[in-house]
Formats: sequence, structure tokens, C-alpha cells
Amino acid sequence: MACSEFSLIENYFNQQATSRADVRLGIGDDAAVLQLGANEQLVVTTDTLVEGIHFPESTSPFDIAYKLMAVNLSDLAAMGAQPRWASLALTLPEADKHWLEQFSAGLFELAQQHRVQLIGGDTTRGPLTLSLTLHGVVQSEAFLKRSGAQVGDAIMVSGYLGDAGLALQHVLKGDAIAPELLRRLNRPTPRINLGQSLIGLASAAIDISDGLLADLGHILTASSSMQSLGADIQLENLPMSDAVKAVTATGDWSLPLSAGDDYELCFTIAESAIDGLTENGLVVTRIGSVTDTQTIRCFTATGEKLVIDADSSGYEHFSESK
Amino acid sequence: MACSEFSLIENYFNQQATSRADVRLGIGDDAAVLQLGANEQLVVTTDTLVEGIHFPESTSPFDIAYKLMAVNLSDLAAMGAQPRWASLALTLPEADKHWLEQFSAGLFELAQQHRVQLIGGDTTRGPLTLSLTLHGVVQSEAFLKRSGAQVGDAIMVSGYLGDAGLALQHVLKGDAIAPELLRRLNRPTPRINLGQSLIGLASAAIDISDGLLADLGHILTASSSMQSLGADIQLENLPMSDAVKAVTATGDWSLPLSAGDDYELCFTIAESAIDGLTENGLVVTRIGSVTDTQTIRCFTATGEKLVIDADSSGYEHFSESK
Repeated sequence: MACSEFSLIENYFNQQATSRADVRLGIGDDAAVLQLGANEQLVVTTDTLVEGIHFPESTSPFDIAYKLMAVNLSDLAAMGAQPRWASLALTLPEADKHWLEQFSAGLFELAQQHRVQLIGGDTTRGPLTLSLTLHGVVQSEAFLKRSGAQVGDAIMVSGYLGDAGLALQHVLKGDAIAPELLRRLNRPTPRINLGQSLIGLASAAIDISDGLLADLGHILTASSSMQSLGADIQLENLPMSDAVKAVTATGDWSLPLSAGDDYELCFTIAESAIDGLTENGLVVTRIGSVTDTQTIRCFTATGEKLVIDADSSGYEHFSESK
Repeated sequence: MACSEFSLIENYFNQQATSRADVRLGIGDDAAVLQLGANEQLVVTTDTLVEGIHFPESTSPFDIAYKLMAVNLSDLAAMGAQPRWASLALTLPEADKHWLEQFSAGLFELAQQHRVQLIGGDTTRGPLTLSLTLHGVVQSEAFLKRSGAQVGDAIMVSGYLGDAGLALQHVLKGDAIAPELLRRLNRPTPRINLGQSLIGLASAAIDISDGLLADLGHILTASSSMQSLGADIQLENLPMSDAVKAVTATGDWSLPLSAGDDYELCFTIAESAIDGLTENGLVVTRIGSVTDTQTIRCFTATGEKLVIDADSSGYEHFSESK
């Protein structure tokens, strides 16, 4: 669904009359944060995958389930939360034994790694739609959010960018694809440990599901209050696999900048706090800085500014117009 | 989806390796119960509505949303939980302004009555599918569950049975229908206050979504450990509206016994505790008793036993065979 439709929808659901004091963070971040008792807070996120929209029909049930768990875990990672419980809403055309066997195996493979227990849900007949609600916990107020980025903060990302997008291109074309690359699309690694390590260090964080520019844009929008924030990105610093580098060498930067589905973390951090990252042994890459320019500007190694099409970037509010 | 398919599915999701000590009640009740801090427990339930499966295509967006919130609230009512937060997974073919306006109005109308706040979710494009995860809270260990019914306990229900099923028959046939009756289908009343009042009184509880026999069957199954439980139901005691009574007068008891969607509570209670119900001013009806017969037997006013077709009752394990 396009971003403009998303914001239209969000408008309707922001009109509710109920406003509870125990809702510490509501609609609009990677997850909600809810007060429960004096010391702990509950973190809740929901993600849905629809066949034909979020995954090609050729995707195996194991991989669908793995990714469903991964994208929800990734949201908790972006909050710095410790995962606990999952609730599954499963709509499927028929109860096929082989499908369910593979699907549940994929779900539990990743759930077990993070000690997540499935605690319930609902199964209904209908077009294949999978929705997982994942619950995590943080110590009171010790969570990451999208707002909080300041002018001058460094912009960092984990892992490599663009692999999932490249893999999807191959799958859709029916091209041969290296298993490692396909794995980056079907079995993304949620950065749970990194997220928890960033508490007290990062000024803002998000997971990259829609693409770097779009998701960095969400941080900048959420962090803009007195002044509208922007960012300068050094393209040569973007962490990329050799396969993605081969594409960007042609001058096409859309994979690392705009392709989604990588589920790496993007976060901002004050210059003075950067030393804390290496002290904690965290492998992340600095790709740029937060500015007061109101736009995201991308610079090549020779200092040229890349002109980005707002539509292709998925980043509505801050992108350079042509 | 038929019961046998449901249990097939449940089997797969009961094979998980993770078993957390803080999961007080997992898959298989109306909701899960999770320990959070020393004094409170979190209660989580998820329900999905699919167009053409759970509601006719003619249903208004307001009523779809109202019912989505109602059926989830009803699960919390069956746990005796206090509702708090909702998370919505919305899959829809297109972002239609009028539809969203009406849908959100329906959702918030009932949410506001119970001080439920929408705290997030996910919106995706696809066939119309609506999944709500609702969170409530109980004091530690003070919740209702399905297991706990004992031989000799009274079986009680709230409200009237069969109205929603009768309304659905009219809607599907395109017949004229009284607005009060249609309301019983589209805008069921979750028995939140009753549920909370039953804590410490009821021995087991469930909400009637699949029909009285099927849901009472769930209580009996969950409560059977040393011995297999059954029930005797006095048909003349079933609480029914005049419209439903007109149908049962023909000898067809399927509406109050097997039609779903009423979202009344069905619970069991020790004889010695029944006085507590009237002391609390609770309006409920006694319809029978828990037995050790391993079957549900239904008796007419003249003492005749009604023979029930297991398939039509939706109750697999305990129904009388022909």
C-alpha cells in the first residue's frame, strides 16, 4: 500500500476518544509501549503478511512463517525490547497438513532462538493472510523510539543494505539465485541483541522494512519539532555485499537506498556517544549525519549530490525533488 | 472452518519447544494469561473476521468493526479480565475514505465504552480481513478458565440464546428483519461486567461463539481429567426471545443449542455458590447441571430426551449419536 494511503488510514485511527495514561507510546512507532506495574513496560507490535503482496506465491510455508516471526522481532529490536510472547491470526484457504507442518516449523525455529512462546491466536478460513502480534518487555522508560534525533547526530546502520531487494528482483524474474542471497530475503535476521545494546546510546532507532530513505525519513519526521530535520548520506559508506555493489557501480543506488525488507536497524547517535558502540563491540556502519536541511541529500565519493525521485525512494516528506 | 480442522491445526502449534514459566495459560482457552510483575497478569486474545466467512458482504463497515471489537471483548469477558489495549491488523483491498470513516467509528464506539485504547497494528493491501488483538488485565490468578467444572455444578448462561443465528438466517435469505434482532447479530454485547463479577464464583466459563452445545462441550472437555464429564440440559429453561421461541415451538431446537454468534457467557458454578449470584444482582439463567455421563443430554419439559446430531451441534466429543 502506498505511503499516502497509509497516512490516510492512520488519520482515521488517530481520532479515538480514549486516551489511557498507561499508554506510554501509541500508534506511530515500531511498537506500542504500555505501563504494567511500576518497573516494567510491555511492548506490542503487529505485522501482517499477505500472499502475492508481501511474498511471492512460490515462497515455502517454512520461509513465510520464519519471515513473519522475523519482521515482528525486528520491530521489537527497533524498540530495544526483549521478546516474550506471540499471538497468531492465521487465515488460510484450507487446512493442509504439509503446509501447516512446514509453517509451524518455520515459526518455531526462530521463536525458539529468542525464547518466544506462542500463546494463542485465531485460525479462520479465507485468503492466505498471516498476522502476528508479538509482545516484548523493557525496563520502565528504557526503550528506543523514532523521535529523539538531533542535528549533528551520526546516522548508523547494521549489516548490509539492498540484499533482500536484489534477491526479490531475481525471484520475480525467475533468475537463478545464490542461496545466501535468497536467505537474506526469506530469513532476515532480527537485530534483537543490537537493539537492546543501543538503549542509552542511540537517540532514535527504526528497523529498515520500507527502505533506508523511507525509514530514515520516519526518524526525521518523528524527531522534527522545533525545526524540520534532514540528513546527509555518504553513498560510498553504505554497507553493501559484492552483489549489490555490482549494481550500484552502474550508478543505480535504488537497492541500498529504497529497496525494503532488509530488516537491519537504522539509528542516530550523538557524536559524543559513538565511542560507546565500539566499547560494546557492536558492528555497525556510519553512513551520514542528521542536518537541518529538511531534505535527505545523498553524496557520491566525488562530492556530487545524487538527485532522488521522491516516488521511487518511498520517502515522501524529505526527498529532493527533481 | 470445521472443528476437526481446528484441532488438526492446534496440534501443530502445540508442538513448540519454548515453554516459558511466565505463561500462566497458553493456547486453548478464550485468551492467554501472562505473568507481568508480582501482582498483575496480562490477558491476550486475538480474533479474525473474514468477509464472506464471518459476515455477509452486505454488512456495514460500522457493524463489522463493532463486532470485531465485541467478539474480542467477549473473550476477555469469559476470562473475567478488565479490557485495556487493542492492536489491529487490517487487510483491505483499497483505502476507501467512507469505509474507513465508518469502520473506525464502529471500532471506537465500543472501545470507548470499555476504555479500550487502540495502540497500533498493521495495515496491508489484500482481501478484506480484520484481526484484532485485545489486551486486558487481571489480578494475579484471579481469572476464569474453561477447566474447573465439577460433577453437580449448575450450568448457567447470560442473556438470550439463538437471536444472532435467527438474524443471520433472515439476512442470508434477504428477508425483512426487525432492527432489534439484526442488532443482536451485528452488535453483540460483550458481558465484561458479568465476567469480572464471576471471579471467585464460577468454576468454569466460556463465551458462546460457536453455539451452546459446542462451547459447553469445550468446558466439559477442558474440565475432564480423572473422569469424562457430561451435562444434562433442560430445554424449557433455555432463555430465548419470543422470535426464537416461535421456532423452537416447532420442535427445532438448533437455534438456541447450535447457532453461534450470541456472545453470551456460559459458566458452571457449584450449588453452594449460586446464592452469590443473586447477592451480586447478576441476571443469569440456570439451564442444567454437569454430570458424569460423558455426553450432553437435552430434555424436553415432558422429560423426553432430545436426540442431537453431532454434526449439526458442532460438538464433537460429547454429543449423543443417533
